Amino acid sequence: MKDFFKVSTLKEVLSLVDRFQPVGMEKIHIDRALGRITAEKIVPDSDLPAFSRSTMDGYAVKASSTYGASESSPGFLTLAGMVFMGDVPEFKVGPGQAAAISTGGMLPDGTDSVVMIEYTEKIDDSAIEIYKSVAPGEHVIEAGEDFRSGQVAIDMGVRLRPQETGLLAAFGKTMVNVYRKPKIGVISTGDEVVPIEETPGPGKIRDINTYTLGSFVRETGADPVCFGIAPDDRASLSHICGEALEQCDMVLVSGGSSVGIRDYTVEVFSSLPDSQMLTQGVSIRPGKPTILAVSGGTAFWGLPGHAVSAMIVFHTTVKPFIERISGLKPVPKYGIPAELTRNLPSAQGRIDYVRVRINRKDGRYFAEPVLGKSGLLNTMILADGLIEIDRNSEGLEKGATVSVLLIR
Amino acid sequence: MKDFFKVSTLKEVLSLVDRFQPVGMEKIHIDRALGRITAEKIVPDSDLPAFSRSTMDGYAVKASSTYGASESSPGFLTLAGMVFMGDVPEFKVGPGQAAAISTGGMLPDGTDSVVMIEYTEKIDDSAIEIYKSVAPGEHVIEAGEDFRSGQVAIDMGVRLRPQETGLLAAFGKTMVNVYRKPKIGVISTGDEVVPIEETPGPGKIRDINTYTLGSFVRETGADPVCFGIAPDDRASLSHICGEALEQCDMVLVSGGSSVGIRDYTVEVFSSLPDSQMLTQGVSIRPGKPTILAVSGGTAFWGLPGHAVSAMIVFHTTVKPFIERISGLKPVPKYGIPAELTRNLPSAQGRIDYVRVRINRKDGRYFAEPVLGKSGLLNTMILADGLIEIDRNSEGLEKGATVSVLLIR
Repeated sequence: MKDFFKVSTLKEVLSLVDRFQPVGMEKIHIDRALGRITAEKIVPDSDLPAFSRSTMDGYAVKASSTYGASESSPGFLTLAGMVFMGDVPEFKVGPGQAAAISTGGMLPDGTDSVVMIEYTEKIDDSAIEIYKSVAPGEHVIEAGEDFRSGQVAIDMGVRLRPQETGLLAAFGKTMVNVYRKPKIGVISTGDEVVPIEETPGPGKIRDINTYTLGSFVRETGADPVCFGIAPDDRASLSHICGEALEQCDMVLVSGGSSVGIRDYTVEVFSSLPDSQMLTQGVSIRPGKPTILAVSGGTAFWGLPGHAVSAMIVFHTTVKPFIERISGLKPVPKYGIPAELTRNLPSAQGRIDYVRVRINRKDGRYFAEPVLGKSGLLNTMILADGLIEIDRNSEGLEKGATVSVLLIR
Repeated sequence: MKDFFKVSTLKEVLSLVDRFQPVGMEKIHIDRALGRITAEKIVPDSDLPAFSRSTMDGYAVKASSTYGASESSPGFLTLAGMVFMGDVPEFKVGPGQAAAISTGGMLPDGTDSVVMIEYTEKIDDSAIEIYKSVAPGEHVIEAGEDFRSGQVAIDMGVRLRPQETGLLAAFGKTMVNVYRKPKIGVISTGDEVVPIEETPGPGKIRDINTYTLGSFVRETGADPVCFGIAPDDRASLSHICGEALEQCDMVLVSGGSSVGIRDYTVEVFSSLPDSQMLTQGVSIRPGKPTILAVSGGTAFWGLPGHAVSAMIVFHTTVKPFIERISGLKPVPKYGIPAELTRNLPSAQGRIDYVRVRINRKDGRYFAEPVLGKSGLLNTMILADGLIEIDRNSEGLEKGATVSVLLIR
């Protein structure tokens, strides 16, 4: 068996991620900030909340006024007033007194806790009975208890979820510095590839990779820039790669990495300004003929032309690089632990990625390998995710616990 | 303890989802189809692939020509020609012959399999040695093997992932019928709530819910329509709800569901045309005072005003309704199984949602409850997900396996 090109392990390739730097930043309105990555630390300039608030509907009290109250021996409190939402209570609440308050209301002077309305009974307009005692601070958020002025609330490099956009709103931070979305060039190559609008003649197929890779780029939070199909000749590819270098922060060329035509992909990448070949193969399957080069600070990937292989290489290998230049701090990827439903043989010396469906039965998850030739697109449609068979393993046994990385 | 309103179980509320119908559809280009939900079955009108293709670089052969070949006893084949990518091979390959072929190339007449190039050695321009035999069909995808003409490839009601957009491309289906994105009205109420651009005076807070709920709506694949803050009076709320009914497919009102002000939320919902109250409380915590009404076919939700409660109610209760009107067929939600790191007490008769962080140690996941008062926004920032404590449970013990639903 011949070795056609020096292959790197996936670990070696992933360790190259530090060579690439995050793209620049931009200031945007929080209306559009969902899913974007912070390029500044978010530090409130005042306490949140700014005042002690009730977290329940009920009665604000001094906790000591409630001690000993129970269903069998209710406590008796007189009403000192009512807190109106959004108002500052103008009255004080003394021992043995209470003030009606709604969720979010400001605690009146003299109170430190709230009795939930469910544990009270109104006797008349001036008095209530309570059936439960409370501890100081109970059902109350004190001023600054949520976030203190000057404290880092959201770090740099964090992808904003709905709750973080709400926190920005709470701080009144209408504009936020985020990394701009990296522009990822997507180039298909191959004389057999035709635009999707055309009916492919015999021997030809439509350009799938522009859509799968473009979509994966978008799901990763970056913007695809699609250059269409480069004919299988060096000059055309060289020209398009030059254009992509000018416009993009990373470039994905699919189809030029098989033996033969891969030679001039390597040549084209090597002839880019200030270029260096970083990898000419990765010991994963599918995806071995993957190429990584750098021109200046811009990564150029040569991905397999086959749609399924290209998707799996994207998911396992390319994505961490896009996340890196997006400014995202590394975050754990949560796999779904599941039991493998059949034996899976594998060759040592490479990582095998196997497509699986997840089935749930009696509260347990099962990972069922998707049958069928690995080159079939339908295996990716049927699959929920991928499992990894380590390079030092000869395979996995039925019943083994695997971690399913969802593909989406 | 008083019961202020008739509460439904979450299961009862979720069973109401069938009362609501998917919104209409629209035809869009597959460039914009990622994440959208199919409103038609996708059925190719020709086989995929249209011809038998190689899935490897190597030599196309008739499998029987390779039988017996091994490292120690190589087979000898003469070269009948070379398949050019995208071309129809004009030659035939007889027994004892082979044709050079690249991944994706069309199999010449007379061949049924491909020997990988790694298992071959070129002797000269007219002959090769092979070190491995192949079975018929090996490293080949036969015409129609991926998808057959007329076979349903993607069902209705499926959210399109990158791989499905690629499949549409492969079929040449540039335009696809999808459900339009539902418009979800988002209304904040409360005299204590001010727009985020303002500095809140004493007793007041900024409008968080417009941003958290709007973002969750967007993550669910729908379009939020934000109406801002309705003052705490019946006429204003009634007016805004009327507007929202005209413009939206569902409406979320937050803040008007606590005792007192919740009364006129109920009144306003009840006075909408052709309205019916479906739920005036859900036995979940947080989130009990949640209201669901319907006006015509449009759901009106009254959510807690408190940002954390509103987010959790959205995630657990509202989201399935948005998915329903989005046309999405129910799909399993994969929780991350994890070990609980501490005892969690809970009251029977309601479902408790507890925020947790996920920690990974020695390949195992641990769910660590986020400490701090449940009303604190920072608990949602620190949390990776939610775990559910069943209504029939008095709590969970340290070490119990829980399923963490990621919040995002």
